Parts: sequence; structure tokens; C-alpha cells
Amino acid sequence: MNVGIINGTSYFGVELVRLIANHSEFTVTSVTARSQAGSKFGDVFPHLQATDPDVARLVLTKALDKAAVDLIFSCLPHGVSAKALAPCVDAGIPIIDVSADFRLKDPAEYTRWYQVEHPSPNLLSKAIYGLTELHRDEIRKATIVGNPGCYSTAAILALMPAFRAGIIERDVIIDAKSGVSGSGRTLNLDSHYSEVNESLHAYAVNGHRHGAEMRQELSLLAGGSVAVNFVPHLVPMTRGILATCYATLSWPVDNDEITSIYQDFCSDEPFLIFSSKNPPRTKTVAGSNYCAIHATIDQTGRRLIAFGAIDNLVKGAAGQALQNANLMLGLPETSGLNMPPQYP
Amino acid sequence: MNVGIINGTSYFGVELVRLIANHSEFTVTSVTARSQAGSKFGDVFPHLQATDPDVARLVLTKALDKAAVDLIFSCLPHGVSAKALAPCVDAGIPIIDVSADFRLKDPAEYTRWYQVEHPSPNLLSKAIYGLTELHRDEIRKATIVGNPGCYSTAAILALMPAFRAGIIERDVIIDAKSGVSGSGRTLNLDSHYSEVNESLHAYAVNGHRHGAEMRQELSLLAGGSVAVNFVPHLVPMTRGILATCYATLSWPVDNDEITSIYQDFCSDEPFLIFSSKNPPRTKTVAGSNYCAIHATIDQTGRRLIAFGAIDNLVKGAAGQALQNANLMLGLPETSGLNMPPQYP
Amino acid sequence: MNVGIINGTSYFGVELVRLIANHSEFTVTSVTARSQAGSKFGDVFPHLQATDPDVARLVLTKALDKAAVDLIFSCLPHGVSAKALAPCVDAGIPIIDVSADFRLKDPAEYTRWYQVEHPSPNLLSKAIYGLTELHRDEIRKATIVGNPGCYSTAAILALMPAFRAGIIERDVIIDAKSGVSGSGRTLNLDSHYSEVNESLHAYAVNGHRHGAEMRQELSLLAGGSVAVNFVPHLVPMTRGILATCYATLSWPVDNDEITSIYQDFCSDEPFLIFSSKNPPRTKTVAGSNYCAIHATIDQTGRRLIAFGAIDNLVKGAAGQALQNANLMLGLPETSGLNMPPQYP
Amino acid sequence: MNVGIINGTSYFGVELVRLIANHSEFTVTSVTARSQAGSKFGDVFPHLQATDPDVARLVLTKALDKAAVDLIFSCLPHGVSAKALAPCVDAGIPIIDVSADFRLKDPAEYTRWYQVEHPSPNLLSKAIYGLTELHRDEIRKATIVGNPGCYSTAAILALMPAFRAGIIERDVIIDAKSGVSGSGRTLNLDSHYSEVNESLHAYAVNGHRHGAEMRQELSLLAGGSVAVNFVPHLVPMTRGILATCYATLSWPVDNDEITSIYQDFCSDEPFLIFSSKNPPRTKTVAGSNYCAIHATIDQTGRRLIAFGAIDNLVKGAAGQALQNANLMLGLPETSGLNMPPQYP
Repeated sequence: MNVGIINGTSYFGVELVRLIANHSEFTVTSVTARSQAGSKFGDVFPHLQATDPDVARLVLTKALDKAAVDLIFSCLPHGVSAKALAPCVDAGIPIIDVSADFRLKDPAEYTRWYQVEHPSPNLLSKAIYGLTELHRDEIRKATIVGNPGCYSTAAILALMPAFRAGIIERDVIIDAKSGVSGSGRTLNLDSHYSEVNESLHAYAVNGHRHGAEMRQELSLLAGGSVAVNFVPHLVPMTRGILATCYATLSWPVDNDEITSIYQDFCSDEPFLIFSSKNPPRTKTVAGSNYCAIHATIDQTGRRLIAFGAIDNLVKGAAGQALQNANLMLGLPETSGLNMPPQYP
Repeated sequence: MNVGIINGTSYFGVELVRLIANHSEFTVTSVTARSQAGSKFGDVFPHLQATDPDVARLVLTKALDKAAVDLIFSCLPHGVSAKALAPCVDAGIPIIDVSADFRLKDPAEYTRWYQVEHPSPNLLSKAIYGLTELHRDEIRKATIVGNPGCYSTAAILALMPAFRAGIIERDVIIDAKSGVSGSGRTLNLDSHYSEVNESLHAYAVNGHRHGAEMRQELSLLAGGSVAVNFVPHLVPMTRGILATCYATLSWPVDNDEITSIYQDFCSDEPFLIFSSKNPPRTKTVAGSNYCAIHATIDQTGRRLIAFGAIDNLVKGAAGQALQNANLMLGLPETSGLNMPPQYP
Repeated sequence: MNVGIINGTSYFGVELVRLIANHSEFTVTSVTARSQAGSKFGDVFPHLQATDPDVARLVLTKALDKAAVDLIFSCLPHGVSAKALAPCVDAGIPIIDVSADFRLKDPAEYTRWYQVEHPSPNLLSKAIYGLTELHRDEIRKATIVGNPGCYSTAAILALMPAFRAGIIERDVIIDAKSGVSGSGRTLNLDSHYSEVNESLHAYAVNGHRHGAEMRQELSLLAGGSVAVNFVPHLVPMTRGILATCYATLSWPVDNDEITSIYQDFCSDEPFLIFSSKNPPRTKTVAGSNYCAIHATIDQTGRRLIAFGAIDNLVKGAAGQALQNANLMLGLPETSGLNMPPQYP
Repeated sequence: MNVGIINGTSYFGVELVRLIANHSEFTVTSVTARSQAGSKFGDVFPHLQATDPDVARLVLTKALDKAAVDLIFSCLPHGVSAKALAPCVDAGIPIIDVSADFRLKDPAEYTRWYQVEHPSPNLLSKAIYGLTELHRDEIRKATIVGNPGCYSTAAILALMPAFRAGIIERDVIIDAKSGVSGSGRTLNLDSHYSEVNESLHAYAVNGHRHGAEMRQELSLLAGGSVAVNFVPHLVPMTRGILATCYATLSWPVDNDEITSIYQDFCSDEPFLIFSSKNPPRTKTVAGSNYCAIHATIDQTGRRLIAFGAIDNLVKGAAGQALQNANLMLGLPETSGLNMPPQYP
């Protein structure tokens, strides 16, 4: 099957190419770029010339060749993406949008967080939030998938077993830490090496956009509105997100019960690893589509502390998009995604 | 004045030497080491040969020359330190102990966390917890100061204005992140470059020893027992700690009031920087004795989120020890500590 | 086909497991370890539990189950390795030794560099130096392959086209830079995070062991004794080696001719990438078996400057070992090795 | 004495502020910036607010207040700098220019490397190349000092004793490695965190501008034209340069003689550290104005290998500028520069 990538020169796009190289059914046949249209893909990323010669040979275009593709991954920024994808939806091509344009159900909530009117509010009811473990069945039938934010993926997966089991209050603190690649390839001072290296800080303390997704999906899971305090931090590393989540237990639960709830949940899922003894290290999932999860009760016995670790560019972006594409096109969910992590 | 350093070949010891080089009144005259006794200090740390020739020339000894010093910094591990310092206390020499041996008031609590009987419980009543901003007046008169843990320094300073103002409940979550130098120069797999680099993880989730200090000192501040959930994380950088603290407000407080409480508090303190707009970056205090603090109300208006950023080897260790030494010997508190951070 | 790994808990061993997971013909069926014998492999490396469950389930043994394997990778240190492998050779099992024990042809040279007598000098005549591009045909028929050192791989590949073309003098300077994982998982101060991070240094300036291999193989290539000045440097990163090589041209050669020599050479090789415009970045081959090569004439027209960049754990270790194993067992050389680099 | 900084919001400018904070005689009284004129210095660099309140309070201006300063440091880019400084020279104010505008004696050579006509060729004869150890006496009397490039400082100091002693041929290879801060605070893809981290590459192989300075100054030292092959590399760290230099010995010299030549040279210099046993680590000089030097003969006895390690922002930039300023204003050369390195 042929797939197209819109804005393929982003980190998300080039990571999709890496993963699809390992996929027996997918071929990348059309890639767009904004400023580099006309160049060959392999000239922008020279390492592709030897390792993915067919993809390297593709000429980057302004517009996607819709006739040539069976599925589209869009890596455009929010606002731009929904507008660009509307004709693809009309043409009946399944799309996976990595921007936030198809994540929030409520156009008003979208406007509140993204400061623009949603360009295609009529499409929102068709769109499925692409956290595979949460909406697997709907994704199978979906034509539009809004691929989740990287922070949201780690945090929701860490809290999902507890909300499913109904053991925590609907008020959570999510203290999340991310590598720098999550902010993309566009230059800014917060990705400037000498500013980031040997430093650590929190940002967007008064409201990060991924918080809105977390609220929507956790509330759905919990069957009622969940209050979310989400504080993201930037850590001097390229890949990896760790979400440390704190929630008050609804009643006394012991660690054995927690272990059993989390272990059962993970054992049914191909990409969830239950780390039984210790909180996970992001390195143990680097380069892979796995999410490693740990949960424990605090010393006072009142709070659950749950951890989710992912590679932000794989399970937090391109890997999960591919996982969703597999489902949308009727392939085994794990196709092309069974590479082990790169350690050390 | 002459000072001695016990176990001077630790990162703490060599950082003390760096800071004291900038101090007009102190001279390092006696340095002990365990395995390297007999060597010259400058042979263990060749960079000292040119930059601190007098210190580099010192021969490392097994035992401190008590007659030669007016004050002692001990960088021995817990358990060992209190035992080694008892004769110094008897000799009337002021001591600053960087281990945990003189931090906890309650010997039972000490045994609980350090799994040994306290070697000199009779000295505990004399010892002052050396968070300068909290116990300045007592430190001036102290003969034994237990220098605080690095995590505790960042967390307590971040929460201190709020507890002083009485605006938060006595139940806090402290999600702290540290660079690797905090674990010292002793080799272990968690400080092995290839394991730590490009990775991130939480540890000691079921109880880190610094949690006990935080509980003791925050309870003192709050006038009642404070529940503390403390989760430390290891971040791939050498220096720096950021403590992100969450607490429920006792009643509605707005951000202006928070700003005013924190600003007033910091403006009276020589080493506290109030970061009014954004959470601090550890890089902005690197190499210096400053602690940068920020606080804000969350979006729901129910929680305070407070941040403290320090260099774990300076304000979290050797710098604060020197700040305390200044007070104990009647010098200006900032002597030798006015170097600006090293940025970038 | 079943393969065994001796000392599989090294970085080399665990990287072999990662690569073999992607290999359709090989299964890891026996893994030994020294201190951790008796444990399950997946308990030492928890990330394998989910991603390679069959390998994770293997119980680490003291001795290899020779009956269970068709080929052996030995990751033991030099000296120990040849001794441990002798019975395997007697049993007729093809072996690939990652230590230096089967690299040098001359036992005296071995003793000079490794300060021990070679334990099995009689095996040396059978052993082939496993730089695939140099000894492909002999490796196909070999029963013992001495897998090259990581530095040697990068340096020899960078200089090979020039020596083949006969355009440089037999006197080269190799200034090489390596990430830290090359020194393995054993703890030492030079791999201690706080010592390595934000630092850079040369080491073994008066003779690094890989220099002896380079001398042997480059002399073979050049048809006469080559003088080698090899200076290795340690760089604060986990993976990657860059060798910068300087050689005097035997006669005036222009850049077009250099490009043509190098391009022709690389185009015949599945894992060599000719970087035509710029020196390669180690990141462009990270996680892959590729070696990226660049060569140019200096401004005075007298010297060739050639660059080779590899991932030290893949083309510099486990990847090249697998490449050799493919040849030894009659499989396509690229089996299991076609993964693209992980960028960024 | 009052000093002004032109383009003070560069890394060079803010590092000057850090160093001058430690200088008893200098006060920064005027700072210019291009895009941020009108802002307070402390608003651009918030960490200065507490640590250097007087400097933080300065309003950044478009033009320097020449009447207010006794000496000027210019951190403008080449081409722009000489033009901006001409009126200051006319006003008789001593200037230290960190750009390349006053480094090369020959305007044609300047045009060759910087692709512009020199804006003030008449000033070139007045300008002194500010490598303090090389031109100390001329700097004392200078009104214009062209502060050396960071690479040039490390390389020339490493080779200077050998050329002075006349023991090497006039043909050197300089393989230098630098941290990222050398490329400044301006955004570009080569300083983008995710591109630089965990990567290593050479650049400007066909001619880096610092090569011209090295050629000029080494030729002066050697008393005849020196051929220089200079290959710079970018290393994933913020601060530090290591220059590894290779030169053919003019006649057989043994290591004892080398040691004696280098040791004598360094012992007379306040900022040169002779590392007798091992090549230096950049960490041992981080944050300080020291240059650590090592030299040895290669195994064949034909070549000298010499190393110079500096902090590129201190001895390679602001520190050396301050060292020169001290000389120009008749102060002790080491004023404000006696801080030990920050280790680890």
C-alpha cells in the first residue's frame, strides 16, 4: 500500500520514513515539504540516500499526489493541517493528522487553546482520538485520526488502568519531562544547544495545550470531569518522555492490587510493558513503540504514583501513527513496529 | 582562618576548594582522604596544581590535624561522619557535616532511614539543621551544623514562603529532578555515562532519605505535621536540581498575592532570586550559591505550584556549607560566595 | 540457525540481541555471563522482557551449550576469549571473537600490546581479520573471525580506497574520536558521567592497541609497512566514532579524482555511504551498520584528508559481527542489517 | 575604570560580565545591543538581576556612550566591527575587538577569507594580535587589540614552545574539537540541540578562517612560512576546545627534552598549565582562563604531538580579552582572572 507524508521534512516525517522502512506492506510514494519543494528528499536528509534509496529519490512537492496514496500522514502544524486535509477527506483517503486539529471534540475548546477558529469543525465528529489503547475499535473504522500529543500519550497510558479500575479521584497532577526533539526541527532559542544542555526547566505552567487533550480523554475514561494539573519540563536529551502522575486513591488499595491491575492491563497490550519493580527509564524504550509503565502507592497509603515512559518520536508520534494506520487499513497492529529499543 | 576538609577528594570537597579560593578569610590547611592518603591533593586533581597551588601541595592525611584548623567541613558518608567528628566536637572545633548524621533530630527516625544506630545521639540536640534561610540565628551560635541534603534545600526554599504565609495545606508533593553529580564520585551503574546519557528515570519512589528532612523542617515551618510525597528523578546533566512542588491552597489566593509573598521573602535574602515571570532554569544558577524561585496558582485556582532551582554542588552542598561557616565564624554571610552563575 | 553469545551481558552482547531480533534466520539460544549466571537474561536487561521475550527467558549460564548452537559470538575480554574458544574451535563451531585475540597475526605483536602470551597461538593462522570489506572472500570460508576494533574499522575503511588506488604515502595520522559506550559496561572513572560529560580528552597517546591492527591491515593493503600515528579521543556521547585521517599524496591528485576513487569504491559496497559534499556526522549512521566516508585534498594540494564515521556498537562491533556471521553461514551479507539509522 | 561592551548580548558579552564581576578595578557602564536596544540588560539575561544588579539595570543602547568608558570590548561580527570601532579609535579609546577584523595584517588575506573589503585598512598597522603569551609587550602599548579566534588560541599555544625551541618543521596538522557555544547565540541548524547532541562531525575542511590567523602567527614564531592543515570538529558539549597538533621533528628529540621545553615555557606563564603525564581534559580548565598543554613524541620518534585545552569562552574569548585589557590599562595581568575551573 502506498502512503503519503505531508510536511515530511519534520522530525515526525523522517521518523515515519525510518519506521516504514521496516514495514512489509507500506511504501512511501509522495512526500510534501514547504520550503524545500523541488529538492529530492535524500538531499535534505543525506543519510536516506543509502539507507532508503527509493524514498531518497522522491522529489518533494508542494501538494500531495492524492491519486498515488492509500493513506496520508500529515505533519503540518495545527490550523494549517485541518485546512490542507479537508480535500483529502473529501477524496475518501484515510488520514492520520499529527497536529492537534483533530484531537479536541469541542471547537470552542480548540479555539481557547489554539487561538484560531477551527477551519473544518464539521469534520470533528468524524475524527477519532488516536490513542490506540483507548480507541482501538473506533480507529479500525475511522477515516480521520487525530494522533495524540506526545505528553498525552505517556500520561494517559500511565493513568488509564487506575481510572478503568475506578480506584482514583478525578483530580490528577501530571509532572512530565521531555527530551528536546518534541519541539521539532524549527529553530528557536529553547532548542539552541548551549541553552538546553546542562539545564532543566518547567514551561507552560499556566496551561499547556496537551492538558486539554488529557482532560478530554481522562474524563471520558473516568466517566466524569477530571481536573488535570499538567506541568511539562524540558530535559537535556534528544528523545524520551517520562510522565510522573499523582492521584488520590478513592479508598485504601495496596500495592499488590495496584500491581495486579496494571499487570493485567499491560499483558493484553502489544506495546505496553509493565515495569513491576521500578519506575521505567526512557532509555529502555528508546527508538521503539513501547510504553513502559509503573505504579505504586505512596508511603502514606493515600496516593497513587504512576509513571509512563515513551520515545516521544515513536509511541509519542510516528510509531503510534503507524500503529493506527495498520488498524485503519486492516493490517496487524504491530506491523513494522516490532523493533527492540536501542540500548544503550 | 584555617579550615580542614575531611574526605576532601569527594565532589563536595573539591567544590569547597573552588569556593574557598574566592574567599578572602579562609585557607584550607588540612585535607583527609581514605584511599589516597599520602598523595598530594594536586596529584588526585591535577587542575588544582596551577589554580590553587597551596592546596595542591597539601599531603592528604588519614586523620585531620585538629590543631591546625578553626573549622571543619566533613564530607564523609553518613554513619562514619558522626563517629569521626565526635572528637572534634570535644575539642571545641566548629563543624559542618555534609552527611545526614546531624540533620534529623530524632535518633529513631535516623535509624529508620539509615538502617544504623546513630553513633553519637547525644550530639543531636546541639546540632542545627543548616538551611541558612531557615535557621540563620541558630547557625550563628552553633558548633555543629548538619548541612542539608541537596533536594531538601531546593524543595524547602520553594515552599518556605507559602508555609510562612500560612496559605497551603500540610500535604505536599515534591517532584524533584537532579543532575548526576549529586551521587558523588563513587562508581556505580547509575552514574555510568552510557546508562545515564539520553535517559531519565525516577528512583527511590517508596522513600528517599531526604524526604525525612523535608518532613521535619516543613513541619517545623508549618507548625504541624506535614505529609510529604517526594519523588526524585535523575536527569542527564552534571549539575543542577529543580524541585517542582504542588500544594493545595488553604483558601483562594490569587497570583498577585503569591507574587507579593514570594517577592518579599526573596528580597530579604542574599541568595534567593525571585523569578517573577517564569519557572527558573537550573542553568541560570549553575556554579553559584543562588536559589531561583517561582510560584504560581494552577488553572483551577486550587493549587500552588512552586519551583526551586539550585546548583546541587553549591547551594545544595559546598556553597551552603560555606555560607554557614561564614555565620559560625562571624563573617559576612556572603563572603566568598558572590560569584555569578556560569552561563551558558 | 541457532547462535550463542558468550558474555552476553556486555553492551556488545545486548546489541547483538537487538540486531538479531531483526534477522529472519538467526535465533539466540544460549547466552553466558560471568557474575550473573543463573539469572534470566531479561532480569538483567528488563527491556528485553517485552521486546524479545524468547531471549529474555533464557537462563544465563557459566558455559555455552555448544550442542545447541551453529555459530558463536564471543564478547569476552582479550586473553580470556581465545582460551574459552579453543574447545569450540575443536568442536568445529564457527566463531566470531570480538576481543583482540584473533586480530593480530603475529603472537609477538600480540604479547607486546596485550602483555600476555597468546593462549592459543596455533589458532592464529586459521583466524581471519573480520573487516568485511577487506577480507570478504576469506571470511566466507573462515571458521574463526577476529572482529575488528571499532577505531580500526572506521580508520581502515576511510583509508582503504586511497591505499587501493596507490595514491598516498605509507605514513598516516589517524585522529579518532569515540563515544563512551566503546569502553563497555564495566565501571571506571573515565566512564563516570560527571567526569565525561562536558569534557573531551585524548588518551593512549603513546600507543593504543588498535594501532597495531591498523598497522597490520593497512600494510597489507599498501603492500608494504605503513607507519601509523593513532590518537584516540573520548567525546561526551554514547555512540559513534569519527576517524579523521591525514596522509601525504604520492603525487598531485585533484578532488575530482579523489571523489571518483571513493565513489566507485563505496558504490560496490552495501554498507559504505560516500558523503560527496561534506564530512559525515556520526548521527547519520547511528544505530545502523553503515560507515559514511568522505575524502578531500587539503588546501595546499599535498595531503589527503579522509573521514570514516560509524556507530561503534554496530559497524564497529555487533553489526559487523553479524555481517561476518551471514557470510560464514552462506546467508546474504545484509540479512538483519538493513535498518536505517535512528535520526535525530 | 569604566568599560563598555558593544553587542553585549552575545555569549562573549555576557561572559565578559561574569568575569568582570570578579574584577576589582573594572565596572561595566555601557552595553549596546542591536535588536534589544531599549531593554534592560537584566531583562534579556534574568540571572544577572540578582547576581550583577548594577549591570542588570543598564539600559541597552544602540550606540556606545564613548564619554563614559575607558576601554571598549567589541563583540560585533567581522566587517561590522571595524567600521563601528573606527570612531572609537579616533576618540583615543583603547579597544579590544573580538571579531576577526583586527587579526590579519594583510588586507588581501582578510578579503580572501571574509569575502569583504576591510572597512578600515589604515588601522591594521596599529592593531596587535591579542594572543597575550605571544605579544605581551606590544599589547601593553596597544590601542587596538584583535582578540584571537578560539581555535587559534588553543593551537598556537600548544605549538608555541616547539616553534620557539626550533625543533619542528614548518608544516603542521591541527585537528581541533570544539563545544557548541563557540558558534554563538544566533540560531542555526548546526546549533539545534537534536542535531548536535549525540553527534560529531568535522566542518570547513576546505578552509576555516582561523587557519589564516594560525598561519600568520605561527609563521611569525617560526621565522618562515608555516603550512597549516586545520580541521575543526563540532563536539556535543557547551564549552571547551581541544587542539591536537601534529608536526614532524626537525631532528631526533626525546620526551625528556620535550618535557623540559614545555615545562619551562609554561612555568613562566600565569595561565599556562603543563600537564606532564597525560593530554589535558577540557573539563580541567572549564570556566577558567587557563590553557592546559601536553606534548609528547610519537612511537616512531619522528613526530611531535602537542595538545592545548581551553574554555573557548574564557581563554578563547572573554578571559583573554580581559587579560589583554589588564595589560593595556596597566593593571596586573591576572586581575579578575584567578578563579579556579569549575569541576566537575
